Amino acid sequence: MKQNYLNNLPLDTAKQVYYAHLKQAGFSGKTETVAVTDACGRVIKHAAYAHICAPHYNASAMDGVAVKAAATFGASERTPLRLTPADYTVVDTGDPLPQGCDAVIMVEDLMECGEEQYQIIRSVVPWQNVRQVGEDICMGDMIAPSGTVLTPALCGALLAGGITKIEVFKKPLVGIIPTGDEIVPPTENPAAGDIIEFNSTVFKGMLGQADADVKVYPITPDKKDKIRAALENALAECDMVLISAGSSAGRDDYTSEIIASLGTVLVHGIAVKPGKPAVLGEACGKPVIGLPGYPVSAIVIMDEIVREVLAMYYGKAQCARESVKAVLAKKLVSSLKYSEYVRVSLGEIGGKLCAAPLARGAGVITSFTKADGVLIVPQNCEGIEAGTEVDIRLNTPAEALKHTLIITGSHDPLIDEAADFLAKRGAPFRVCSTHVGSMGAIYAVRDGLAHMGGIHLLDTATGEYNTSYVQKYLPAGSGVIQKGVGRVQGLMVKKGNPLGIKEFKDIARVRYVNRQRGAGTRILCDYLLAQSGLEPEQIEGYRNEEFTHTAVAASIAAGNADAGLGIYSAAKMYGLEFIPICNETYAFLVDKRYAEDPMVRAFFEVLYSPEFRQRLDEMGGYSVQ
Amino acid sequence: MKQNYLNNLPLDTAKQVYYAHLKQAGFSGKTETVAVTDACGRVIKHAAYAHICAPHYNASAMDGVAVKAAATFGASERTPLRLTPADYTVVDTGDPLPQGCDAVIMVEDLMECGEEQYQIIRSVVPWQNVRQVGEDICMGDMIAPSGTVLTPALCGALLAGGITKIEVFKKPLVGIIPTGDEIVPPTENPAAGDIIEFNSTVFKGMLGQADADVKVYPITPDKKDKIRAALENALAECDMVLISAGSSAGRDDYTSEIIASLGTVLVHGIAVKPGKPAVLGEACGKPVIGLPGYPVSAIVIMDEIVREVLAMYYGKAQCARESVKAVLAKKLVSSLKYSEYVRVSLGEIGGKLCAAPLARGAGVITSFTKADGVLIVPQNCEGIEAGTEVDIRLNTPAEALKHTLIITGSHDPLIDEAADFLAKRGAPFRVCSTHVGSMGAIYAVRDGLAHMGGIHLLDTATGEYNTSYVQKYLPAGSGVIQKGVGRVQGLMVKKGNPLGIKEFKDIARVRYVNRQRGAGTRILCDYLLAQSGLEPEQIEGYRNEEFTHTAVAASIAAGNADAGLGIYSAAKMYGLEFIPICNETYAFLVDKRYAEDPMVRAFFEVLYSPEFRQRLDEMGGYSVQ
Repeated sequence: MKQNYLNNLPLDTAKQVYYAHLKQAGFSGKTETVAVTDACGRVIKHAAYAHICAPHYNASAMDGVAVKAAATFGASERTPLRLTPADYTVVDTGDPLPQGCDAVIMVEDLMECGEEQYQIIRSVVPWQNVRQVGEDICMGDMIAPSGTVLTPALCGALLAGGITKIEVFKKPLVGIIPTGDEIVPPTENPAAGDIIEFNSTVFKGMLGQADADVKVYPITPDKKDKIRAALENALAECDMVLISAGSSAGRDDYTSEIIASLGTVLVHGIAVKPGKPAVLGEACGKPVIGLPGYPVSAIVIMDEIVREVLAMYYGKAQCARESVKAVLAKKLVSSLKYSEYVRVSLGEIGGKLCAAPLARGAGVITSFTKADGVLIVPQNCEGIEAGTEVDIRLNTPAEALKHTLIITGSHDPLIDEAADFLAKRGAPFRVCSTHVGSMGAIYAVRDGLAHMGGIHLLDTATGEYNTSYVQKYLPAGSGVIQKGVGRVQGLMVKKGNPLGIKEFKDIARVRYVNRQRGAGTRILCDYLLAQSGLEPEQIEGYRNEEFTHTAVAASIAAGNADAGLGIYSAAKMYGLEFIPICNETYAFLVDKRYAEDPMVRAFFEVLYSPEFRQRLDEMGGYSVQ
Repeated sequence: MKQNYLNNLPLDTAKQVYYAHLKQAGFSGKTETVAVTDACGRVIKHAAYAHICAPHYNASAMDGVAVKAAATFGASERTPLRLTPADYTVVDTGDPLPQGCDAVIMVEDLMECGEEQYQIIRSVVPWQNVRQVGEDICMGDMIAPSGTVLTPALCGALLAGGITKIEVFKKPLVGIIPTGDEIVPPTENPAAGDIIEFNSTVFKGMLGQADADVKVYPITPDKKDKIRAALENALAECDMVLISAGSSAGRDDYTSEIIASLGTVLVHGIAVKPGKPAVLGEACGKPVIGLPGYPVSAIVIMDEIVREVLAMYYGKAQCARESVKAVLAKKLVSSLKYSEYVRVSLGEIGGKLCAAPLARGAGVITSFTKADGVLIVPQNCEGIEAGTEVDIRLNTPAEALKHTLIITGSHDPLIDEAADFLAKRGAPFRVCSTHVGSMGAIYAVRDGLAHMGGIHLLDTATGEYNTSYVQKYLPAGSGVIQKGVGRVQGLMVKKGNPLGIKEFKDIARVRYVNRQRGAGTRILCDYLLAQSGLEPEQIEGYRNEEFTHTAVAASIAAGNADAGLGIYSAAKMYGLEFIPICNETYAFLVDKRYAEDPMVRAFFEVLYSPEFRQRLDEMGGYSVQ
């Protein structure tokens, strides 16, 4: 088996080496001239100077009459002045001031007194109610310096300054070449072994946000000559090329070799996790970057390097990156071999931002869909303690974080459903829910890291739910148990129940799939095991832990396990058979301080609404308590 | 003269009335189904649930060999285990796990020992190095709730979840009808009285940012039947119509009347400044809004109301509006008749954000090009003291504000030129300069509101520049005078000097245009007047004040005045004749605390560079000191 090696260059070194080379190779933005009326959002190449003044003539600022100000001096309530048609000219707002006039009396200050005469009781001073030439913009003034992104107002100012066309950076065209024998175009019915090619769609979106145009080429199989031909073709058409997958040093990884054959490879292997097996190269004076196949790894390289290369194209020194301070909700351990990019969800609670680390697998695209930001753990850092203040690079606008209901605890699909109902009602906040089990809810509320969380904790001594746990773990009066739903828990098994499972103790003779420690369903499992006189060691798969009811159902549906404990709605979703075991109380533990918070109240209003009860009926296995 | 009256409805009331009516009239978003590969940035109508699991099969997470984990138990350094071809299957990353296998040993952990056999010294546990079915996404999981804006990562997750098409809100088409007899399309050579129609470009940009498509109709003259016909046509084609100008109650203002004839006018006149004369109407179930003709007024209505109507279309309760706390740099006086929208520039200095109010004229589009944010002064507030902490609604991303060099003081075009040089060099910060005169620089630096400012303050007792002022007004050692340039000050007069002006005292016989109090040039003027034995009262136009050298030049070029004091480069720009009066020292007062700040240093590096000296030579009238 072929086995190559990658470098492990620190990120900053990799960037320095690469950007210096690109600069040397003459990589920079092309330009085009466009109409200012269509230039919003574009980046100007040169400073823009006003061609004319705005206004370019003395303009009346009001509807009224234009006069020579000196002719009105002395007018007062005691000595009103009469204006004859010879003294004034009627003007509308925007009309040019007639020759000899230097002020306007507004219509509200004129009293008609017949024969086209007006009486005034206040004088005007020179230039009163007049927009003098250049009031807004003076000819020759710089309206915007080089490299400015044109805002709507700037486009207006350019037009007001007599500029109708402007030289802007052409949007760079970035080619994406997806590679891989196992890769298939998006489909609803992939075969086993087919990998749906969604990375190019993610890249396209990110490139669009960075003001690039994108051309996605057809999927190219893992054949050296085909990828090489595809790259040559893309180099002829594009300003920059991304090759997706094949960037590592495995059997079928050709990216580095191919780029080297057509140009120069500057870096292969960067000390970031995820994202290590990236290739930074150049050919024909254009950047060619080999992206890792795992989506999360690729996104890190896109965000760290591709965005900065695009900024270089636009002549910018760096990308704007919004960051915030947040308190880390959970201890993080990190390797000294890499700087690590940890996706976090963020929410503001009690005036401080909390950052909760998300799943860290490189294949888990949902860790980015839920990521409000990224915590970068430096290479020389072994880990960060919970409660530490950290810098988070934002994905979600800071404002949205202030309006987030944080629900941390036991998983139930009804939380997502309630969030959807809230969204449909146009609720002015978002719901951020994390599945950490019922005990996780108790710790999160105790530590001020969540507004509330789902719990279903069986007190095995009394058979009662929730109350004793809250009393034991939370300071008295700091948490409120809010009514949720009744749920049926049971064993999920394959359709037709081929192994003839009838009761809980039957799990001893099949492959079980468990829930994680701290989950209410795990506590129930352990209780049922004890009741059945079984030891965990007797259960095959006891240590095979999943984090949600649907993940347990998916595992059984896939044949990875034969049985697992969970709720009816999950079994139904996967067409599994469901053997009811017991009814339980799924409630919400709410931090007392937020019990009357409008977001919390809106959540329960939805939960108790007739429409939502109907949705629960459709999902099945719930009862109203 | 016709004179109608507007209402003065408080903004919140106006919105309530209007939005309730639109809801009643059935205004809401249309939808369309698009490919997920093209859906980035779109807003989904319904919650999206995964059709399939991701991965949808058990996939190898590594290059290596797939095995039955149980068969490896017991392998250790002391008891290595041999795998024969019957025990394993070679797999690449992403390959499906063969039937009967439940773990992968990665290639790095395999020692080849001939005859296609491998030795291992570590066992694997079930599911090690395997991405189990549903690791990322479980079928039936909600990927995103209703109304979600699709991010690149979400598009990836949808595709991974087997969703290839999705129902999204169709972008609304908003029609813009510019009206007005005096309005002309963008041109570089407008005649006197022509008003360049740039408002529609500003609106188009703002609408694009709010995810709307735009159709700009031809300019319609102020004729009732023509505007009515244009509106009928636009209503047939668009989801919403904006009528630009004619929204007030003047002679030629027909918007309100026309909307009423085709539908309903809910509001005419809102208690906001600028923005009062807005019309909020509905026809054919579509919003029809009459925008004021003054650009700044119209932008306020666009930002406050049109954006929210578009949010309604997308089913959102409100627009995301980022706001920050800042310290007000200058006292504001406001009217009890309106809530007032004051544009401010923002910069961070010494860790706190300062907000400096910009020009307040409704016609001054540049007050929006420079506006980093808007301070809303409530209707019941008469004003706000300097130093008060205020909420600012942001236009500029918060991150950019942290990287802003604030230069407040005397005007010289060289500051803009230096900012442009910095931009061209890719400096990682922006320059925000405000013209408040030399004394303004001293106060701004003293009060910690600027990093530095331009000064040219003549000590009339000694004839020396700057030093004595800094000593008098700043605590000892708190400010540093940094070398700038020498400048020639002189009288600007019309080309050919038709009035035969020869020396400063000649201004007593012509129309003068002055600079504002506190400007170094004003102090020079007063000094020269005293030297000439003249009193201000003897000078026509002494009270006619402009804020910049170019504004003085523009005033003379337009014939509004005959002479004014200023620098050579301004006279040159306007083709004016220049009568040199004296040489002066234009320097920079720098807050001592920021003398070594990288932004300040970068500014002076540019200023002292040979390339910049060359630019100064081109501009003319400067000398290197």
